[in-house]
Amino acid sequence: MEKNRVEAFSDGVLAIIITIMVLELSVPHEAELSALGELPSIFVSYVMSFLYLAIYWNNHHHMLAVTHRVNGAVLWANLHLLFWLSLVPFVTRWMGATHFAAGPTAAYGAVLLLAAIAYYILQGRILALEGPGSILARAVGSDWKGKVSPLLYLAALPLAYVHQWIAGGIYILVALIWLIPDPRIERALAEAEAEGRGARP
Amino acid sequence: MEKNRVEAFSDGVLAIIITIMVLELSVPHEAELSALGELPSIFVSYVMSFLYLAIYWNNHHHMLAVTHRVNGAVLWANLHLLFWLSLVPFVTRWMGATHFAAGPTAAYGAVLLLAAIAYYILQGRILALEGPGSILARAVGSDWKGKVSPLLYLAALPLAYVHQWIAGGIYILVALIWLIPDPRIERALAEAEAEGRGARP
Amino acid sequence: MEKNRVEAFSDGVLAIIITIMVLELSVPHEAELSALGELPSIFVSYVMSFLYLAIYWNNHHHMLAVTHRVNGAVLWANLHLLFWLSLVPFVTRWMGATHFAAGPTAAYGAVLLLAAIAYYILQGRILALEGPGSILARAVGSDWKGKVSPLLYLAALPLAYVHQWIAGGIYILVALIWLIPDPRIERALAEAEAEGRGARP
Amino acid sequence: MEKNRVEAFSDGVLAIIITIMVLELSVPHEAELSALGELPSIFVSYVMSFLYLAIYWNNHHHMLAVTHRVNGAVLWANLHLLFWLSLVPFVTRWMGATHFAAGPTAAYGAVLLLAAIAYYILQGRILALEGPGSILARAVGSDWKGKVSPLLYLAALPLAYVHQWIAGGIYILVALIWLIPDPRIERALAEAEAEGRGARP
Repeated sequence: MEKNRVEAFSDGVLAIIITIMVLELSVPHEAELSALGELPSIFVSYVMSFLYLAIYWNNHHHMLAVTHRVNGAVLWANLHLLFWLSLVPFVTRWMGATHFAAGPTAAYGAVLLLAAIAYYILQGRILALEGPGSILARAVGSDWKGKVSPLLYLAALPLAYVHQWIAGGIYILVALIWLIPDPRIERALAEAEAEGRGARP
Repeated sequence: MEKNRVEAFSDGVLAIIITIMVLELSVPHEAELSALGELPSIFVSYVMSFLYLAIYWNNHHHMLAVTHRVNGAVLWANLHLLFWLSLVPFVTRWMGATHFAAGPTAAYGAVLLLAAIAYYILQGRILALEGPGSILARAVGSDWKGKVSPLLYLAALPLAYVHQWIAGGIYILVALIWLIPDPRIERALAEAEAEGRGARP
Repeated sequence: MEKNRVEAFSDGVLAIIITIMVLELSVPHEAELSALGELPSIFVSYVMSFLYLAIYWNNHHHMLAVTHRVNGAVLWANLHLLFWLSLVPFVTRWMGATHFAAGPTAAYGAVLLLAAIAYYILQGRILALEGPGSILARAVGSDWKGKVSPLLYLAALPLAYVHQWIAGGIYILVALIWLIPDPRIERALAEAEAEGRGARP
Repeated sequence: MEKNRVEAFSDGVLAIIITIMVLELSVPHEAELSALGELPSIFVSYVMSFLYLAIYWNNHHHMLAVTHRVNGAVLWANLHLLFWLSLVPFVTRWMGATHFAAGPTAAYGAVLLLAAIAYYILQGRILALEGPGSILARAVGSDWKGKVSPLLYLAALPLAYVHQWIAGGIYILVALIWLIPDPRIERALAEAEAEGRGARP
């Protein structure tokens, strides 16, 4: 089974999710630039979600670039990931509209947590197909990022009730951890090419 | 005529349909998590529709993977299917907003019924092109799923007026029947490969 | 220059245009099916626009299938067509919401007229690249459909003020004329193949 | 690393951005055509933004057509560009709804300025990969357009407070400068082909 259409569908869904969030940015009724001052929390939550979705797209792109084939389990694991990511605009809007209130900020973290778990499952399904000696297996390695992120999100849930900025700070921290687009895969790919084994069979 | 653009367009439409539904999830005005308690029926209908559209995408993906060419009749049968699926967000919203009232729940079933018939027609058009000895013909086989689903939807329409959860239960049952992404095609594909006849000419 | 990305971008825009129209179908507040009785004109205009956009996608698909290359003029002619088509959801909504009032019905026809002219220009740009002996030139032939459609739209504009159903009837008539997905191209393609000259160089 | 998915994702995002703007065109409640007279500034801002996004898509298309590979830096530079472009519908709506008031008109220019800078960065990242003797390097040349546009946007920001039509005029001027879809690349491509070196390795 070919992976092209999985990539195309995922790209479509991610492109739409990342773009429709801007529909939520409600236009201020006043014409002065100062009117924008009323929507900083909405804007901050928009930027953060754009960043998170961009990171997901980037890592998804890298992972599938070294994937050789997919099966039904991978298709469903991918749809499961897309489901949680599809809720990002909803929690973004809620968190922004309530000025980062504790409940919505925790809900935002919960969606990120479930998306991270879904990504982990998807990666596991692909690794099971690719095998332990594959480029992806080498690239993922110990996967400390994939393991530490859910723990950080989990910690953020109760901490949002202590102070929302603690949770917000954790979300930014995790984003920064991931910001580098998985150089592990780029490196492993380069190594594999150097060894004369191209990423594509 | 090539099938690539049919796949691309269908992927685009399905990706948009599956994603814009989240725009309907209206943000609660209160900041407490308990505010989410007001939207369980909207959320349940969202999850169910996401699942249905994911099943359609999956089966569409599998069917076109073993399709070798398309003609005008296939293009129009595909557009007919997309038309009924495009109404899913509308009936989802209506059913969710009225807390699974009888009328909207029956309307939801009617759209599913018409989409199922449209899928059946599309499959028939492709089978007519592929021929009785094709991989798709072997994979579809007796197609008991494709035949029993419309009957179940049809039964759900009046039963929604008896109690909405009977209809809801039927929708979930049909989703579960289809949840396995057509292993018939995966199996037939594997057999065909074993026989040394690749799915692609 | 390759045509793939032109197809992909056009598919994306057309998929979005055809799908976001459903966002305009406002959910009735009542739960009875009779509540749907209030939105027949909105639904009729939705179906008609879905049909028109499907026809455009189909013919665009057929035309680009026999196109070998594109240049800057083709890119801009294509964007010009997409611009007018992007206004279809707007006039659809307006016509539906005002129950096919004369003004909005005429505006709907005006957008169809301008889209038809844009399609004609795009076809001309591609024909200029393909040359008079090309498959597309043979397929288009005298192009009576392309010439009669704008005249019918033009006639519909004032007739919408006589009675809106005259204009509506003309729109349905033009749709029916086009409904057959340009068998000219399918036929010309088949002939070309029979002559041993594949559509792709 | 392959560029196909970068093109596909960018096409998806640009197609959505260019299309969802039409959702902002609110339907007049009256049925007379004169009712449209109330939304000229919204329509003008829609046309202008459509044109700008079309120019970006066109140039992006041309640039990636002569790009041979991408890396992580290119991916992020591309996402950075898409971020600023994703804000175009927001400022378009704001500028249109306030009838080109000074503040929103300046905000529109600021988003265009930041998008232009992001495009410049993206081009720089690709040029760094392609090398000074590449087709792209020859095509870009002195890049006077890329250098003069940000200066014009920068000038428009304070001038929007003098009179909004000065800023508006500058935006139209820059659009006209770019309207020709980078014939530099088409020319360089033709030259490269004439020299017997195809654009694709």
